[in-house]
Amino acid sequence: MHTIYQYQEFISEYLQSQYETKEPKNLYDPIHYILDLGGKRIRPVLTLMSTEVFDTDYKKALPAALAVEVFHNFSLVHDDIMDDAPLRRGKQTVHEKWNINTGILSGDAMLILAYQYFEKYQPKIFRKLAKLFSKTALEVCEGQQWDVDFEVRDDVTIREYLKMIEYKTAVLVAAAMKMGAIIAKASKENANLIYDFGLNLGLAFQLQDDYLDAFGDPETFGKQVGGDIIENKKTYLYLKAVAFSKKEEKQQLMDLFSIQPEDNSDKIKAVKEIFNSSGASKATQDAIQDFTFKAFQTLDKMDISADKKAMLRAFGENLMGRKV
Amino acid sequence: MHTIYQYQEFISEYLQSQYETKEPKNLYDPIHYILDLGGKRIRPVLTLMSTEVFDTDYKKALPAALAVEVFHNFSLVHDDIMDDAPLRRGKQTVHEKWNINTGILSGDAMLILAYQYFEKYQPKIFRKLAKLFSKTALEVCEGQQWDVDFEVRDDVTIREYLKMIEYKTAVLVAAAMKMGAIIAKASKENANLIYDFGLNLGLAFQLQDDYLDAFGDPETFGKQVGGDIIENKKTYLYLKAVAFSKKEEKQQLMDLFSIQPEDNSDKIKAVKEIFNSSGASKATQDAIQDFTFKAFQTLDKMDISADKKAMLRAFGENLMGRKV
Repeated sequence: MHTIYQYQEFISEYLQSQYETKEPKNLYDPIHYILDLGGKRIRPVLTLMSTEVFDTDYKKALPAALAVEVFHNFSLVHDDIMDDAPLRRGKQTVHEKWNINTGILSGDAMLILAYQYFEKYQPKIFRKLAKLFSKTALEVCEGQQWDVDFEVRDDVTIREYLKMIEYKTAVLVAAAMKMGAIIAKASKENANLIYDFGLNLGLAFQLQDDYLDAFGDPETFGKQVGGDIIENKKTYLYLKAVAFSKKEEKQQLMDLFSIQPEDNSDKIKAVKEIFNSSGASKATQDAIQDFTFKAFQTLDKMDISADKKAMLRAFGENLMGRKV
Repeated sequence: MHTIYQYQEFISEYLQSQYETKEPKNLYDPIHYILDLGGKRIRPVLTLMSTEVFDTDYKKALPAALAVEVFHNFSLVHDDIMDDAPLRRGKQTVHEKWNINTGILSGDAMLILAYQYFEKYQPKIFRKLAKLFSKTALEVCEGQQWDVDFEVRDDVTIREYLKMIEYKTAVLVAAAMKMGAIIAKASKENANLIYDFGLNLGLAFQLQDDYLDAFGDPETFGKQVGGDIIENKKTYLYLKAVAFSKKEEKQQLMDLFSIQPEDNSDKIKAVKEIFNSSGASKATQDAIQDFTFKAFQTLDKMDISADKKAMLRAFGENLMGRKV
């Protein structure tokens, strides 16, 4: 096994080795630009890690890992157009740096390029990987559509919200790990268990992201703290607060989520107070714990050595140990 | 073998049989809308026809044929956003009827759905089809990018223009036919020959489209005659006219292609006169003939029965027999 830092290095090296000078430049330059913005590369790291958990050389998994990373970046490029986002990882988004048409077309090409990485595998593995990939990619699109739909709905349930983040975020984490199992020819049981491990960890991770968006430390959180509140985003915190609040508090919260003041500091403060007083903060932290615990329970059922289990558990704890 | 009309029916029936009530509606409704607008379904018809040319039941080819049709419609949805087109087949485009974000996301889902149709095939065939599909899809993106790039360039060569229409249009026609050969397990030689047949026919078809856009009969041509001239589009006709014209005529043509008058009738008339007097019209008709002839030459080399060759030739003649 290797360290996360080593896996990140392997992915960067492999990514660079795949670049060719391809024409037309206006199609391929934006693709290299977004891929070179970096990020933590969590998803492809998980593919390599999962492959080694099942006693197979990580090198075999590099093409699949890159497919996952290229797909993830495709979804960022198209989502950023839809969200009208100017910045991604502190730099201009593709459609800002070029234009919307370039963002659409380069994104399309990335989705196709992702599939092409699977061509490095023999027919049976190729088919399994591509099939899992297509199912997952379609779910990511569905999750994105739910997210868009929820913006104009006032009756989103917790259940629906969890389904949305499962599709939009967690299934790709899960699939990234299952691909490692497929490449390593692990048993069907192990492949499904590591999928569930990834799915629950992905859900915990997304809920933690919701939580930190409101209560994170501005010094370490990367994004603007309170961003979801400013945008009136119906996150888990908000939905729980609406569900738990009494009539007046609930009305106050819904009123706060209907305004967009110049200066948001009072609004953010008031909303966070309701998140705390209603018990929504506590409920969110409990849910994060629950999904993390579920992920670890799945680990216990897996037919792999104790040190491999400890390693995956440590990875999960590390990922979820992001400080408030 | 069946008639083109029969093949069209088979495709419509199969398409309808594939519809399920899938959620979210806002993702899947636009997909069904664009697919139900119809069109001639030339590409999937060619997949079925090619399969039967190689003595295999067309039914085996239905999933691949639909993949080609769904991909083609994906490219129309995204191209219509890029071209800001209000109408497609006489009806509102997807981004007009819904919005741009819906057009982007539903298009993405269609590209993934296209890949999923190949899952109906066994691993070896699946891999061959998906590989050819990815290569082709990426070329279509590259062709679209060249087309966009050419709009702001004044030095586009005939060679570059032909490469652009080859990628944007002809490769998908070629791949649609080769998929039939792959499904029928035809020899590699036959598979490559039918690809070349489709490629040359596709080129002839696109050049004829350019020609009819200027010189077609308004009664039968479907689109607005002179549309390319109104939009100052650098088609084969225009590029040949620039190449063949003497200094003054060339300047006049370039001046005409820099204006966008309220009433275009004088401009269209003047441009068409130059297309004729310069010899560009004749050169375009010659090129159409050449590519059609090349397609038929490829047929001669194929190892299939004489009646199959005659049938493919009749299809080509029928396709190219659209009247001026």
